[in-house]
Amino acid sequence: MTPGSFLHASILSPPTSLQNKLERLRHNRLFEVVVVSVILFSALVTGLKTYEIPYQILRLMDWLDYAITLFFVLEISVRFLAEPNKRDFFKSGWNVFDTIIVTVSLIPVSDSELAYVARLIRIFRVLRMVSVIPELRHLLNSLLKALPQLGYVALMMFIIVYIFAAIGTTLFEEINEYLWGDIAVSMLTLFRIMTFEDWTDVMYETMVVYPLSWIYYLIFIFLNTFAFLNMLIGIVVNVMEQERAEELKEAHKDDMTIEDLSAQIEELKLLIRSTT
Amino acid sequence: MTPGSFLHASILSPPTSLQNKLERLRHNRLFEVVVVSVILFSALVTGLKTYEIPYQILRLMDWLDYAITLFFVLEISVRFLAEPNKRDFFKSGWNVFDTIIVTVSLIPVSDSELAYVARLIRIFRVLRMVSVIPELRHLLNSLLKALPQLGYVALMMFIIVYIFAAIGTTLFEEINEYLWGDIAVSMLTLFRIMTFEDWTDVMYETMVVYPLSWIYYLIFIFLNTFAFLNMLIGIVVNVMEQERAEELKEAHKDDMTIEDLSAQIEELKLLIRSTT
Amino acid sequence: MTPGSFLHASILSPPTSLQNKLERLRHNRLFEVVVVSVILFSALVTGLKTYEIPYQILRLMDWLDYAITLFFVLEISVRFLAEPNKRDFFKSGWNVFDTIIVTVSLIPVSDSELAYVARLIRIFRVLRMVSVIPELRHLLNSLLKALPQLGYVALMMFIIVYIFAAIGTTLFEEINEYLWGDIAVSMLTLFRIMTFEDWTDVMYETMVVYPLSWIYYLIFIFLNTFAFLNMLIGIVVNVMEQERAEELKEAHKDDMTIEDLSAQIEELKLLIRSTT
Amino acid sequence: MTPGSFLHASILSPPTSLQNKLERLRHNRLFEVVVVSVILFSALVTGLKTYEIPYQILRLMDWLDYAITLFFVLEISVRFLAEPNKRDFFKSGWNVFDTIIVTVSLIPVSDSELAYVARLIRIFRVLRMVSVIPELRHLLNSLLKALPQLGYVALMMFIIVYIFAAIGTTLFEEINEYLWGDIAVSMLTLFRIMTFEDWTDVMYETMVVYPLSWIYYLIFIFLNTFAFLNMLIGIVVNVMEQERAEELKEAHKDDMTIEDLSAQIEELKLLIRSTT
Repeated sequence: MTPGSFLHASILSPPTSLQNKLERLRHNRLFEVVVVSVILFSALVTGLKTYEIPYQILRLMDWLDYAITLFFVLEISVRFLAEPNKRDFFKSGWNVFDTIIVTVSLIPVSDSELAYVARLIRIFRVLRMVSVIPELRHLLNSLLKALPQLGYVALMMFIIVYIFAAIGTTLFEEINEYLWGDIAVSMLTLFRIMTFEDWTDVMYETMVVYPLSWIYYLIFIFLNTFAFLNMLIGIVVNVMEQERAEELKEAHKDDMTIEDLSAQIEELKLLIRSTT
Repeated sequence: MTPGSFLHASILSPPTSLQNKLERLRHNRLFEVVVVSVILFSALVTGLKTYEIPYQILRLMDWLDYAITLFFVLEISVRFLAEPNKRDFFKSGWNVFDTIIVTVSLIPVSDSELAYVARLIRIFRVLRMVSVIPELRHLLNSLLKALPQLGYVALMMFIIVYIFAAIGTTLFEEINEYLWGDIAVSMLTLFRIMTFEDWTDVMYETMVVYPLSWIYYLIFIFLNTFAFLNMLIGIVVNVMEQERAEELKEAHKDDMTIEDLSAQIEELKLLIRSTT
Repeated sequence: MTPGSFLHASILSPPTSLQNKLERLRHNRLFEVVVVSVILFSALVTGLKTYEIPYQILRLMDWLDYAITLFFVLEISVRFLAEPNKRDFFKSGWNVFDTIIVTVSLIPVSDSELAYVARLIRIFRVLRMVSVIPELRHLLNSLLKALPQLGYVALMMFIIVYIFAAIGTTLFEEINEYLWGDIAVSMLTLFRIMTFEDWTDVMYETMVVYPLSWIYYLIFIFLNTFAFLNMLIGIVVNVMEQERAEELKEAHKDDMTIEDLSAQIEELKLLIRSTT
Repeated sequence: MTPGSFLHASILSPPTSLQNKLERLRHNRLFEVVVVSVILFSALVTGLKTYEIPYQILRLMDWLDYAITLFFVLEISVRFLAEPNKRDFFKSGWNVFDTIIVTVSLIPVSDSELAYVARLIRIFRVLRMVSVIPELRHLLNSLLKALPQLGYVALMMFIIVYIFAAIGTTLFEEINEYLWGDIAVSMLTLFRIMTFEDWTDVMYETMVVYPLSWIYYLIFIFLNTFAFLNMLIGIVVNVMEQERAEELKEAHKDDMTIEDLSAQIEELKLLIRSTT
């Protein structure tokens, strides 16, 4: 099985009967279990390769790697051929992701230059776990949905860090070239201070030259804690509002409303008028 | 009192009059206070044993230990005999837990090989506090109920850590065998980075070889902070939804609904029709 | 002014006209501002005393201290005498707190043995800020109200720490006497691990002897993070439920209910029956 | 372009036709993009200056700096002249902020004494990002709105830190002059302990002299964690209440109420009475 045969398979337009069979295979419980097992096994192989292992087992592992790649090619082919409308297949981000990961795995690793990169990319095959297990896919989708909400807060924090890095470089460059050498290094130092990682060592060093420089660190820490708090609250409030809106809609879908009652009473009036 | 006599007691089916007496004893306020006191005392003895104490007091403590074990055997026997239906006793996880802990305490510690393990298991007798105090039992139950919610997020974070550990081992193995030697060690290092524990020391070391490796650490920290945030929000939202659903059910249980009113108005229409 | 004169004042039952005057004085805006100013000034004096200051200024400060104490005695006397019912005065925890703090300040500090303790207690005069500013008093009250909610979670976490300390002492005592010597020291070490303070140094040390001891640390950290999370969620949910309950009560106080409508319709039926 | 010419421009009262043209220019999409681009470019120049760069590029940068300042002066002039009512211009805090930042940039940096300060203030030009992008302006406004809520909690925490600093200085001054020398230094040390930064090093040092001093640190950490928790909860509850209140108002604006129904039924009664 080479990349060529894979492409060949994807061009082929199989008769509907084959497609139906593959669609049934694809949704088969056993097939799903086998796919998850192979992905887990491929993750284990990836992990085992980081240990020092005798040459013969390493050779065996390379063979296992080929087998896993082959299986993945087959599995994606099944998924592709099972799709009634071939164009829809690549509309799903997960299918594109799976295809890219598997295609990259097909690149032969004999070339020593690219081998290193190919090996790194092969690690991402573990991510196929997410694309195969629906609950994880759902989780990742909800994570991605929350991203734009975080965008502007992240930009705000970046501006704060950028300004403090510029000030820090101007003031402290002479004191410690390694921590405050240029704006990029200063931003890394400030990110370190945000995580409280040995931040007092950084502060005590500059306080020898500028005894009041603790003000700089305290303002930075307070600004960030405050921004982080607000981000947290913003997200909680946002998520809960959405939940509540949906819930309200759901709860009152089948209920009779006061408007319905009012209509009934109007009918009553008509009835009374007509009876007299 | 040996394990044998304990088993003997549990086989015995006492006459109902004895069972009633034991049931009354079991729910006696004084009995409960005595049980909690003995557990507290056993916790204290466990704690005191970690201090260097003269041989004679140590001997006294061993005797106290026997007395505590004896008391626990008696207490569980009372609870078992007080149970009207003997089969239901082991249906409660707490009873099984108590029985196992006490049974293990019965193993004689003279055998020096097993003594060490038996001593460790004896520490878990403090956990009997949880099984005896209802509020703590309630708290632990609610903690366990939240576990499945955390399951998939934990799996997601494990996948992230696994992938980063595989990448980290591939890239940084040569730099520090101790921190990035194999995938297990790398995962421990990454967990350390998640807790921000001297993570810059790890980073600065790899930045000497790969000046851009800070990207690796920053992406890892952002991904984890983000996943943790979402986990937190997910749980809060979930818990609150449950609370609200229960509350709504409770609040509107005895309320008249608009549907009831509508029925009343329909009756009115019939009445008017009949009167004319 | 000695403690004697203070007690004398509190026994005196002043005529009502004096009491009225003092009550007006007490609620005077200027009087309140002066009291807050003196407390702030006393805090400043307390702070300044920690600096190395020339002997003459130190003497001046001692005089200031006497003046502040005198003022506090006067202020509390005013508050006491302004109280219509003398018994109610000591029913308020804040009044008791103020009286104790001021009474202790009255102890002459010449005795060098007690002087040290008296000086420490004098620092707590800053806490009078809380008893004087209503917003802070309100905040502290709400903090205290949340305490019982935290009680059982704290007990649960204490049990977890106690068990892990007992295990830790049993296993790691030989490795580092300073960190795992007895159960008290081990609990302090575990509290340190809870704050992630150089916890890997502690772990790497024991991993030399027990390579699998990272399991011990990881389980401990997960258990605590999890318990902390649940505590947080529990409090948020609890607080919000209370808020919602109050709000619902408030919102629907003056509303007509469906039951009222139903009664009206019943009246209608009677009316129709009576008219025919 | 000097500060003089800028002032001259702001005094000029342009004919309405010019104002209209400028107002259209100001809200032009392209104009906004250009302004954001120039601010971004000015941030980049600020960042680049922290690197060691050859003299010729530095000269070029100074020229760029002049050009940016010139552009900012023009941009603010446009905004000012586009304003129909000149007095309203300085009522907006953002306009005042922009004008100050740009005016300070106009000060010639040749004077070596002031050059340093001018260079620092020039960094704040990056903050113009916030004043130009509406989403960031909105975010900052909501941050500022939450400030007063945090005020009293901050005061409470300050009082706690102040008292502990006074106690700490009294007890530990002899042990480590550098950490506990006076009340200001002690407060910095306590802030460090709040961030868990190497707090055990501080504790172990004082425990050599006072073996029970761990009580001091534990109480301090618990008090602060507890206060922080309450602050968080307080803000969440506050924000959600506001949201809910607004939402309720919105939801029930157009609804029929039970009161409306009641009125209808009353009409019915009248109708029945009139028909008989």
